[in-house]
Amino acid sequence: MQTLHDIAPLRERLHEHRMAGRSVALVPTMGNLHEGHLTLVDRARSLADVVVATLFVNPLQFGAGEDFGQYPRTLDRDRELLTARGCDLLFAPAVETLYPNGLETQTQVHVPDVSEGLCGGTRIGHFDGVATVVSLLLHLVQPDIACFGEKDFQQLAVIRKLVADLHFPIEIVGVPTVRAEDGLALSSRNGYLSPGDRALAPAFYRTLSRCGDALARGQSPADALAAARQALQEAGFRLDYLELRGPSLAPFDAAKHDEGRLLGAVYLGSTRLIDNLAVAFRPAEAGTRHG
Amino acid sequence: MQTLHDIAPLRERLHEHRMAGRSVALVPTMGNLHEGHLTLVDRARSLADVVVATLFVNPLQFGAGEDFGQYPRTLDRDRELLTARGCDLLFAPAVETLYPNGLETQTQVHVPDVSEGLCGGTRIGHFDGVATVVSLLLHLVQPDIACFGEKDFQQLAVIRKLVADLHFPIEIVGVPTVRAEDGLALSSRNGYLSPGDRALAPAFYRTLSRCGDALARGQSPADALAAARQALQEAGFRLDYLELRGPSLAPFDAAKHDEGRLLGAVYLGSTRLIDNLAVAFRPAEAGTRHG
Repeated sequence: MQTLHDIAPLRERLHEHRMAGRSVALVPTMGNLHEGHLTLVDRARSLADVVVATLFVNPLQFGAGEDFGQYPRTLDRDRELLTARGCDLLFAPAVETLYPNGLETQTQVHVPDVSEGLCGGTRIGHFDGVATVVSLLLHLVQPDIACFGEKDFQQLAVIRKLVADLHFPIEIVGVPTVRAEDGLALSSRNGYLSPGDRALAPAFYRTLSRCGDALARGQSPADALAAARQALQEAGFRLDYLELRGPSLAPFDAAKHDEGRLLGAVYLGSTRLIDNLAVAFRPAEAGTRHG
Repeated sequence: MQTLHDIAPLRERLHEHRMAGRSVALVPTMGNLHEGHLTLVDRARSLADVVVATLFVNPLQFGAGEDFGQYPRTLDRDRELLTARGCDLLFAPAVETLYPNGLETQTQVHVPDVSEGLCGGTRIGHFDGVATVVSLLLHLVQPDIACFGEKDFQQLAVIRKLVADLHFPIEIVGVPTVRAEDGLALSSRNGYLSPGDRALAPAFYRTLSRCGDALARGQSPADALAAARQALQEAGFRLDYLELRGPSLAPFDAAKHDEGRLLGAVYLGSTRLIDNLAVAFRPAEAGTRHG
């Protein structure tokens, strides 16, 4: 695997691949790779001739007081992991390479609607930063396909809408969340957890799963969500949000949706964890809507 | 020349050109073509194998109370003119084709700094609409080159910054303003003018030119601009703005800039005219700065 830090050699190398008729799949990451990222690489590997990963801790998507400075940088280890999984090219630019004119007047991309609420309600401007850096990476790499994890489900929805609204000539592939054996969704931020908090963390996903089961059995969303919120707080989490949405994040509507997405964010100490899962929703009073 | 209204056949046709190794130049227009647009086509024709024009009156770049509904639509005549100038392909989509999810939640691109002030101060949101539709057209056509007129000088600066900031793989070519024999910059909006106003309109450019000459002779910007503003008002124009900026629209700084750009917008009745010109600036007290 070749590692490139600058734009000119990246464009040259990709031009060669395109001239040779090879398809390209992109896996954008912030590094500190775990099995979740590597599953994206596997998926990309199965879909295209050339797999390009990017490693860039994007300052535009971190708010004031967030963990931009602290975010783990582990380039050497990431390179080994990507090489072992058959990634062809790693692009790992400096901040000044992607934003040569500085951050203050950087052109920004805003995806209305799906960027609002959920994580967008807590992390103001976060999804503008995501939409901007993804736009820019898509222009640099010009892939046929880009793979993103469902663990960041709202981010995936933002990117799908970005690509549709601006007619990017690319297919977005969502890849299911990879979990530890105890159910905790893999995340670079899990490394921030103390041993005690790490032992507590799987209760987040267990609570989401039970809430999803209760909804599937016909419990009302209001009751199921209230019980789950209480369970999370009693387990020791500080709740950011827990919400039921439609499958593409529109407000949940029992008259329209047979399925929904349950999404949550919680804090353990200063570490923020997010997770989500699909739920088969069956309102108690409308059992005949199915089939 | 082929005219296409839908995205799928456009992508197919352009894919064929790319597979054949042909370079593509884009000329985005809102139609109602005049010699200014056709000069862009000539320039594109000289720079690439395939010339693609687009014709789209973009609702996103018109404010409330502006002339979106009234803007002249003259597709048949435009087709003839483009054919005569050797344009290969015209893409003329409907609003619903470019914005299938509606305008209200459309993803928007914002280019800070150069979008502010001048026309951006009067036409709130205008350059967000421009940056958005240009992004989208660049994704649809994926040209090697795109040509824009210097008559819309702030628009050209916005697009240059957009392309640089988001790393679009494209070269932007600015083409000098085409003028009527009496000096009036060609514009589709000139057609709104009454015969009397049309006779008055060339005084706009004459005043800009005299102001530029005064600056070149060493008159202070404050004095030269004040005289030009007064001359415009006495000639019967209602002034929107008249400003001197640096060549890339940064605030003019006599210590840094040997050249500047003089930009103005005026109203004749309800018709808004814009124009601009390069000025060789020589401060009276710093004649040694040159050479």
